[in-house]
Amino acid sequence: MEETFVPFRGIKNDLKGRLMCYKQDWTGGFRAGFRILAPTTYIFFASAIPVISFGEQLERNTEGVLTAVQTLASTALCGIIHSIIGGQPLLILGVAEPTVIMYTFLFNFAKERPDLGRNLFLAWSGWICVWTALLLFLLAILGACSIINRFTRVAGELFGLLIAMLFMQQAIKGLVEEFRIPKRENTNLTEFIPSWRFANGMFALVLSFGLLITALRSRKARSWRYGSGWLRSLIADYGVPLMVLVWTAVSYIPTSSVPKGIPRRLFSPNPWSPGAYDNWTVIKDMLDVPVLYIIGAFIPATMIAVLYYFDHSVASQLAQQKEFNLRKPSSYHYDLLLLGFLTLLCGLIGIPPANGVIPQSPMHTKSLATLKHQLLRNRLVATARKSMRKNASLGQLYGNMQEAYRQMQTPLIYQEHSTRQELKELKESTIHAATSMGHMDAPVDETVFDIEKEIDDLLPVEVKEQRVSNLLQAIMVGGCVAAMPFLKKIPTSVLWGYFAFMAIESLPGNQFWERILLLFTAPSRRYKVLEEYHATFVETVPFKTIATFTIFQTTYLLICFGLTWVPIAGLMFPLMIMLLVPVRQYFLPKFFKGAHLQDLDAAEYEEAPALPFNLATEGELGAGASHIDEGEILDEVITRSRGEFRHVSSPKVTSSTPTPENGPKSLQSPNSTYSPRVGELRGEQSPRSSGRGHSPGTGEVRLSNLGKSPNTSSK
Amino acid sequence: MEETFVPFRGIKNDLKGRLMCYKQDWTGGFRAGFRILAPTTYIFFASAIPVISFGEQLERNTEGVLTAVQTLASTALCGIIHSIIGGQPLLILGVAEPTVIMYTFLFNFAKERPDLGRNLFLAWSGWICVWTALLLFLLAILGACSIINRFTRVAGELFGLLIAMLFMQQAIKGLVEEFRIPKRENTNLTEFIPSWRFANGMFALVLSFGLLITALRSRKARSWRYGSGWLRSLIADYGVPLMVLVWTAVSYIPTSSVPKGIPRRLFSPNPWSPGAYDNWTVIKDMLDVPVLYIIGAFIPATMIAVLYYFDHSVASQLAQQKEFNLRKPSSYHYDLLLLGFLTLLCGLIGIPPANGVIPQSPMHTKSLATLKHQLLRNRLVATARKSMRKNASLGQLYGNMQEAYRQMQTPLIYQEHSTRQELKELKESTIHAATSMGHMDAPVDETVFDIEKEIDDLLPVEVKEQRVSNLLQAIMVGGCVAAMPFLKKIPTSVLWGYFAFMAIESLPGNQFWERILLLFTAPSRRYKVLEEYHATFVETVPFKTIATFTIFQTTYLLICFGLTWVPIAGLMFPLMIMLLVPVRQYFLPKFFKGAHLQDLDAAEYEEAPALPFNLATEGELGAGASHIDEGEILDEVITRSRGEFRHVSSPKVTSSTPTPENGPKSLQSPNSTYSPRVGELRGEQSPRSSGRGHSPGTGEVRLSNLGKSPNTSSK
Repeated sequence: MEETFVPFRGIKNDLKGRLMCYKQDWTGGFRAGFRILAPTTYIFFASAIPVISFGEQLERNTEGVLTAVQTLASTALCGIIHSIIGGQPLLILGVAEPTVIMYTFLFNFAKERPDLGRNLFLAWSGWICVWTALLLFLLAILGACSIINRFTRVAGELFGLLIAMLFMQQAIKGLVEEFRIPKRENTNLTEFIPSWRFANGMFALVLSFGLLITALRSRKARSWRYGSGWLRSLIADYGVPLMVLVWTAVSYIPTSSVPKGIPRRLFSPNPWSPGAYDNWTVIKDMLDVPVLYIIGAFIPATMIAVLYYFDHSVASQLAQQKEFNLRKPSSYHYDLLLLGFLTLLCGLIGIPPANGVIPQSPMHTKSLATLKHQLLRNRLVATARKSMRKNASLGQLYGNMQEAYRQMQTPLIYQEHSTRQELKELKESTIHAATSMGHMDAPVDETVFDIEKEIDDLLPVEVKEQRVSNLLQAIMVGGCVAAMPFLKKIPTSVLWGYFAFMAIESLPGNQFWERILLLFTAPSRRYKVLEEYHATFVETVPFKTIATFTIFQTTYLLICFGLTWVPIAGLMFPLMIMLLVPVRQYFLPKFFKGAHLQDLDAAEYEEAPALPFNLATEGELGAGASHIDEGEILDEVITRSRGEFRHVSSPKVTSSTPTPENGPKSLQSPNSTYSPRVGELRGEQSPRSSGRGHSPGTGEVRLSNLGKSPNTSSK
Repeated sequence: MEETFVPFRGIKNDLKGRLMCYKQDWTGGFRAGFRILAPTTYIFFASAIPVISFGEQLERNTEGVLTAVQTLASTALCGIIHSIIGGQPLLILGVAEPTVIMYTFLFNFAKERPDLGRNLFLAWSGWICVWTALLLFLLAILGACSIINRFTRVAGELFGLLIAMLFMQQAIKGLVEEFRIPKRENTNLTEFIPSWRFANGMFALVLSFGLLITALRSRKARSWRYGSGWLRSLIADYGVPLMVLVWTAVSYIPTSSVPKGIPRRLFSPNPWSPGAYDNWTVIKDMLDVPVLYIIGAFIPATMIAVLYYFDHSVASQLAQQKEFNLRKPSSYHYDLLLLGFLTLLCGLIGIPPANGVIPQSPMHTKSLATLKHQLLRNRLVATARKSMRKNASLGQLYGNMQEAYRQMQTPLIYQEHSTRQELKELKESTIHAATSMGHMDAPVDETVFDIEKEIDDLLPVEVKEQRVSNLLQAIMVGGCVAAMPFLKKIPTSVLWGYFAFMAIESLPGNQFWERILLLFTAPSRRYKVLEEYHATFVETVPFKTIATFTIFQTTYLLICFGLTWVPIAGLMFPLMIMLLVPVRQYFLPKFFKGAHLQDLDAAEYEEAPALPFNLATEGELGAGASHIDEGEILDEVITRSRGEFRHVSSPKVTSSTPTPENGPKSLQSPNSTYSPRVGELRGEQSPRSSGRGHSPGTGEVRLSNLGKSPNTSSK
């Protein structure tokens, strides 16, 4: 992204980039067929459940002025608009916790002013939204999002972890509450005598832990050993919603002996009742607000604007992290502009505004990466099977797979070369594996080439970037308003389990989290980290440096977390996180070596700028696709981008060994020949690391950073 | 074991064999030092908890005539005697479920006879024990245990799985009971109103699942990535008892708001109260029993005798399975004789007799295998570290390790050769790994040779066979009688969780269970089974045959399980399992090929007889140890014994590839070069399999049995 503060230029660039792939955003989505429903359902639940819960919180705090109906409506409305005319369709919008805290504060303030009161609260907050929208327009036009370039991994991941902590805190708080009497309730009800309260709490523990454990397990269903393939896929794709259903059903088992209020369930207004839509006409009250308050609304508006600017951009950034290898451009400036309009709209119809949310947005991208992986995989598996049936040799097999792979690619004009590059790597590693067993020319069968497994290992991470899943999930969130009578059957404890699930789901892939785990890993077990896919820093940065950096970051995180406990100042924790930008830029380089810092926290402004996006149409493999020979430009870009991913089975072929055919790849000492393979599959030549002591071609990687001289590891 | 029915010969052979290693049984135990406490504590809990639970069951059923004090006393007494003068010290004795059922039946019978009644019940059961003891003497003297040879894997594992099912059933029953009012209790107590009962049930779910999950996790602590080595060891060794403590502590958290009876805890008599020892003088009442009943006692006695003969021998057999590679001889005949004496003793002092128990006995052996592994490992790690510090080459390193390994062995005279054989394999695979990286002559450091990991992978399964752990656990069980006031603090729900834990712990290593899992494994995932250590049959027997065999066995298991539900006939399920002996010998060979049957269920009578045991003294490495060259005899034996084990990390170097230095061991197609490595480490040349299509030296293993032509696996 270009760092520009020239007015409108950022927005113009964004629009230009996204318009180029706008058509493909839709065709690509529809072409995925019914399989798009898996990520859609997944993200719908992740989006709707917190919004419902925040709505209930808001209802308690605003004496029923705002309810889950309004939060759901806002989420659905903003989601639909954003998915259609928004820039980055990977970004998920929703009413988030900070908005709830802010609105609670505003309500308490307004309630006590005689010239505002409960009745004019929504009108006043309408004015706040107007001011906020204006500020957001200003920020968008002036290119404030350019700073996102300076917003590095260290800040983004800290924020991600903070959100995970807040979700987990909510889960724990909620569970503890299950043992207590809810504030608004009649304390004389049967279900609030001590014995039933205790029973309710224990039941809540069972339900929430049941949901948490089964949901986490179901996400891993694809690697289960049991059950047929389609069942495993079904469970992996729809396991989490399914588990919400299952545990809701379980909560109905002990009906006969138990009073109606146990376990506690969602409390939500009937969206069909009269008066449920009073707030929608708030615009006619807005001129009744005293002028002083209209002007004063500017103060909370600045806070909300900063908050939204920050949340929205970071959510968008985390959904577009480099390891996802996205092919379509970002759209920070334009999306912020659109957010301004959405905030204005929400303010005028009296519902709390939505903004980009974490962890849902990165979850969305991840689930789409899985989808793309499956689509590619199915195609390649089918091709490989067909070739085998024809008794093709491994050479032919590869040829056919290459062809199929090319056909599946979004045929970016400049990309042709790089695709061939990737496939070349694919070919090499496959053939390399086969040669070692002396099967090169014989017909291939599954004892030599285990199709599904091979292809799983060879495919790079790619994301199905489109607008359909976002649109569908937003529509489904809107449907929740109508489905409220059904939603009310979900026990609150299942909700808390789901909050914990979301917190845990957001952790893998967060390098900050992985560094924290590394600190707790026994020195003698650090080789295990190296056996799996791991970030570059594990090999290139000394352990002491990793530890210092991580401890600094953790301290910072805990300060931010502590800040969230301070009543209204707590809203300003984004400022603390934004403070990390100068800290990272001017303070950290004084304590850490530049090379180390770049491996731990690659800042874009320290790397080469990204190339503008180019797009052709999808699907038809252009006959003239390969006659443009500017491939090397893109190759350079791909080379520089640090494509790191995790969660892939076990290390396989590495090409860092000089003559792979002569040295058996014994895994007895896995850490001695290990080097990340991912990059190689993508044609990465690791030019950065080769300049810093990494010696490709010797089969050795410096491991000194993982500590452990023979003397120190005797524990 | 020799199959002899000549009176007394079996007992004589047993005595001769065990006397030879009697001294070493003690010295070896004490030499292990404080580390022997780990398996001791582990097995003590596994032994004491069910005995306490069965005692409570007995107390309810016999109106308090027999209580947990008596079952604990019997277990401790028999355990101490058996561990000192018994034959096989791996065998754990305890009062088991069948005994409880039998005594319940006898009590109900006696209670209703006016000339017996509640008062003479113990005297009458004393007579039953006398008859039982006589029958056991007869069986032992006549060599009935010789039949154990004919008792194959198919029967033993079926029995093991049946016991696991019964334990699991008990756990589930117990949990369901937590929601109900216990029979004997006053239904008017606060804790039995519906709300508290429900609360109690839910609390029980939390506690039992908490115990189950954490206990299962703690057993795997050794492979955790976090925490220092000693902490991980401590948790793995003592995690289960620790978790019982932890969850008992958790059960005390909600004291303030909850009535005293929630959660329900163990109900046990005060062993210090007067009258608690009335039964100990039952011998003086025995002549008051009418003669008719004395004679009639012979009928239940035959049932008990058959039951004990069966249980005791099978428990002993399962504790001595081939995969444990035991070095000391079995002692079925003599142990049965001793069991007769113990039954007599228990009968005369009015306590229910104890016999060999499953799954505790095999659990005992497994935990001692872990201990031996650790002792060996520590020594070798220390040696390797020392060598590295001196900058030794890999060749020297190996030499030192070999020396250390030899010093640790129980120096059986004939074993010297085989040890060298094993170490040769150890050397070869290590050097092979090193050569491939070109490190052979350079000084070794930990990047090349990851000490702890290497050694873990290279060590064969060995068991620390001694008497100390058995004696100590029996004494500790005795201590439970005194500690009853503390034991009463354990919630019953923790007990149910523990029952489930024991059931699950007994599954791994049971090939029947593993075959059931294989049936449910998706065809496309069967390669995963091959990637891990697996039994021979997976590779040599067609899948259809495996399936047929397993389905037959499962049906048989379910019939046996169904039988246990039939009130008193249920006691006779051992007869059903004994029926498997002729079924296996005459019926199964008609339906399955001999070769397949032997791989699925190697019968000893179809293999070569075991060699008699020979022993020298331990510890001192005899100077003349290697000058006897009869090693080949033992080599042959080791070759024929099927040493199969599981639960070892990932497949490493296999020596079935012809020229390992020329072919890289890519794991991309793991199933194409895989062959079991275990046997090779022990010098096994797999002579059986080489005769049946297994072609060592080609790097290929027939995989046809795992199904999957390219066409059928498209699901």
